[in-house]
Amino acid sequence: MTRVRLRIYLGEEEHKLGPGKVQLLEAIGEHGSISAAARSMGMAYRHAWELVNDLNRCFESPVVAASSGGRAGGGTEITPLGEELIRRFHAMERATRRAIGRDLDALDAKVAAPTRTASPAKDRSRAR
Amino acid sequence: MTRVRLRIYLGEEEHKLGPGKVQLLEAIGEHGSISAAARSMGMAYRHAWELVNDLNRCFESPVVAASSGGRAGGGTEITPLGEELIRRFHAMERATRRAIGRDLDALDAKVAAPTRTASPAKDRSRAR
Repeated sequence: MTRVRLRIYLGEEEHKLGPGKVQLLEAIGEHGSISAAARSMGMAYRHAWELVNDLNRCFESPVVAASSGGRAGGGTEITPLGEELIRRFHAMERATRRAIGRDLDALDAKVAAPTRTASPAKDRSRAR
Repeated sequence: MTRVRLRIYLGEEEHKLGPGKVQLLEAIGEHGSISAAARSMGMAYRHAWELVNDLNRCFESPVVAASSGGRAGGGTEITPLGEELIRRFHAMERATRRAIGRDLDALDAKVAAPTRTASPAKDRSRAR
């Protein structure tokens, strides 16, 4: 299936926002810490931290912040701006698919069939 | 200015199509050869050839083909499918911008002002 991924270049274009960073934000919201989110995605903590730090520096206010209290004694939570980013990114994905879905289907119809490594079906009527 | 780039994952997603490959196709159409197109984009010939080869293998028919004759004694030209790819990609870019332009503007309004290295304007009234 032919599909599209959005990559948003923010402001003066040093900062990128795509499905990967959005998924990381969602995982932080779900797990309550960057390290647990990184683990859930099979991503190195340092890499996750850098992605989040990049987003935090990009906007006029942070997208994640330290949370205090709770059983784990403090972690990381999504700010209202972070929540908005997640919502808006998915809304943009949906709007884009609606806008160009027919083009994607038209391209898909012209894509070559994948080369199959399995052997072709045998003509049983000729066997024996 | 916050903007979007489309990356299309074609068919079973081994093959990608984005603004870079489309620009290369356009340059081949303009210059009539892969080497001249690569040169015009400051791209290594081998890299350009690989990008084109990837697209040619991706679709059920090629996007560029050898052209015979002409002063240069043969080069490369865009096939009708290649032309369609260029047209359709730009149409998808326009449709996407229309569909999510307001979201991009809303994000742009929240991007932090870039750190300026230039010195702030001096208060002339206090000079001397």
